Amino acid sequence: MILTVTLNTALDITYRVDALTPHASHRVTDVAERPGGKGVNVARVLAALGHDTVVTGFAGGPTGDVLRGLLAPLPVRDALVPAAGTTRRTVAVVDASTGDTTQLNEPGPAITPAEWSAFLGAYDELVREADAVALCGSLPPGIHVGAYADLVRRARAASVPVVLDTSGEPLRRGIAARPDLVKPNADELARLTGAREPLRATRDARRRGAHAVVASLGPDGLLAVTPDGIWQAAPPEAVKGNPTGAGDSAVAGLLDGLVEGIAWPQRLARAVALSAATVLAPAAGEFDMTTYRELLSRITVTEHATAA
Amino acid sequence: MILTVTLNTALDITYRVDALTPHASHRVTDVAERPGGKGVNVARVLAALGHDTVVTGFAGGPTGDVLRGLLAPLPVRDALVPAAGTTRRTVAVVDASTGDTTQLNEPGPAITPAEWSAFLGAYDELVREADAVALCGSLPPGIHVGAYADLVRRARAASVPVVLDTSGEPLRRGIAARPDLVKPNADELARLTGAREPLRATRDARRRGAHAVVASLGPDGLLAVTPDGIWQAAPPEAVKGNPTGAGDSAVAGLLDGLVEGIAWPQRLARAVALSAATVLAPAAGEFDMTTYRELLSRITVTEHATAA
Repeated sequence: MILTVTLNTALDITYRVDALTPHASHRVTDVAERPGGKGVNVARVLAALGHDTVVTGFAGGPTGDVLRGLLAPLPVRDALVPAAGTTRRTVAVVDASTGDTTQLNEPGPAITPAEWSAFLGAYDELVREADAVALCGSLPPGIHVGAYADLVRRARAASVPVVLDTSGEPLRRGIAARPDLVKPNADELARLTGAREPLRATRDARRRGAHAVVASLGPDGLLAVTPDGIWQAAPPEAVKGNPTGAGDSAVAGLLDGLVEGIAWPQRLARAVALSAATVLAPAAGEFDMTTYRELLSRITVTEHATAA
Repeated sequence: MILTVTLNTALDITYRVDALTPHASHRVTDVAERPGGKGVNVARVLAALGHDTVVTGFAGGPTGDVLRGLLAPLPVRDALVPAAGTTRRTVAVVDASTGDTTQLNEPGPAITPAEWSAFLGAYDELVREADAVALCGSLPPGIHVGAYADLVRRARAASVPVVLDTSGEPLRRGIAARPDLVKPNADELARLTGAREPLRATRDARRRGAHAVVASLGPDGLLAVTPDGIWQAAPPEAVKGNPTGAGDSAVAGLLDGLVEGIAWPQRLARAVALSAATVLAPAAGEFDMTTYRELLSRITVTEHATAA
């Protein structure tokens, strides 16, 4: 079983409008809702790939109930912990004319110390059954910045591989607790290390404690600095579409390869192909299995001659 | 008792962001929710003025439950009829830097013929107890454009005065059913009559069937064309603030004057003072009683010499 943790789950709402004009009034022509938060997205992709997948984190209030209702028919197990606060909404406003998206993200509910304790109890039990753990996304208000570092240490103590995908101070603290893998994007890497050049920044990040670092370079694919070597994996051509969820699909691909114990070049190829198949899918955050399989054989993986 | 009808109720959500930039991602710094829809706003103001007030219309789904939960502590009676569809949300995005608002309005749930029948049964019973009825706002999908005309006729058959505040084809049809009062704004009047000049457009609207027409002219106050004469009422000076709900407060002022049987100049003064007190209040759609009372004595009401 693969466990994904989303401390700040979300009800993702998508509004379609003819064109977004600041300070005007808009009739929303189409409303869609899906269960969201990075770890939930990762879990959906893992489940589609055939993995037994469990989702934990917090859910509360009326939007938490809607989120759980939307999770129920999906092939992922809901192990969310109740919170008294209300699960946040995110609103993506899509311009029908251009396809561009304007994103509004609520901060999320304040988590109490008692709720955090209840979560830790549930987490420790779930980790014992897990083949891998993914810790994903932002922290809701009330949770200390060292929370991911704590969760990394608990997974390591149980000898379960742990992947961290977050940003800012929680990432900085989390890396120091020595996770098996972190997956920052170029901006997050630059903020963490002060370096802009991808290879240098990725190696710097690894030196901070992560066993391996896979940096997502947007259309240029993934750059992996690992104990076994350094690789860059890229799609066969630039893919055009909606990048929402592409990073989460990459994390799912890396976990898929991790639990199957395959070599880094193949892991990276899966991650890049899933990510590209997500960008190409018409619905935000979804991916098409046929596109994924077709892309998989066409990913270029190049090994760097330098040491990690 | 005053009955307000809101067929397309809403959960009004307000997001504060630093500045709204199209196609960017925004952290919402503050989230507020209130029960909404024009008739709900009118009812809140009437209740604050001391009137026994009942709210009807439709509520359904998780947002309908939240809406009813937010109505429960207010001094208005909830007589909303259940719908299988989900009550719409409206999202107002306020730029903290400028105070400007960008509005996103969901269309609302499709109402089934069986739900409409259930509503008509409830409406007929509530009208029998009512001293006045207000029909407010847009129609949700599934309700025929002649719905307000039908509700106007039913109120008139029960000899209960009926006020209509809507727009477009539902207003055009509703006026023909001879309501006691309609309250269009300048844009709605122009669309209805083709005339831009306020006095001409207001008189044209009245000839279409309404007993009286009170046109809201924004900062210039209200223009009333009635069987007793023509008046214009204006605030003492231009009021600066948030105009959200100002029109609904004007409707509440007109209803307040109607059920108390006071003369038109006083009714209009109340409506203009309430409307201005709503613009001046810091929270959208709220009004300050002290400001209202202070303004009330300072409203200018001018009678036009011409016949209606």
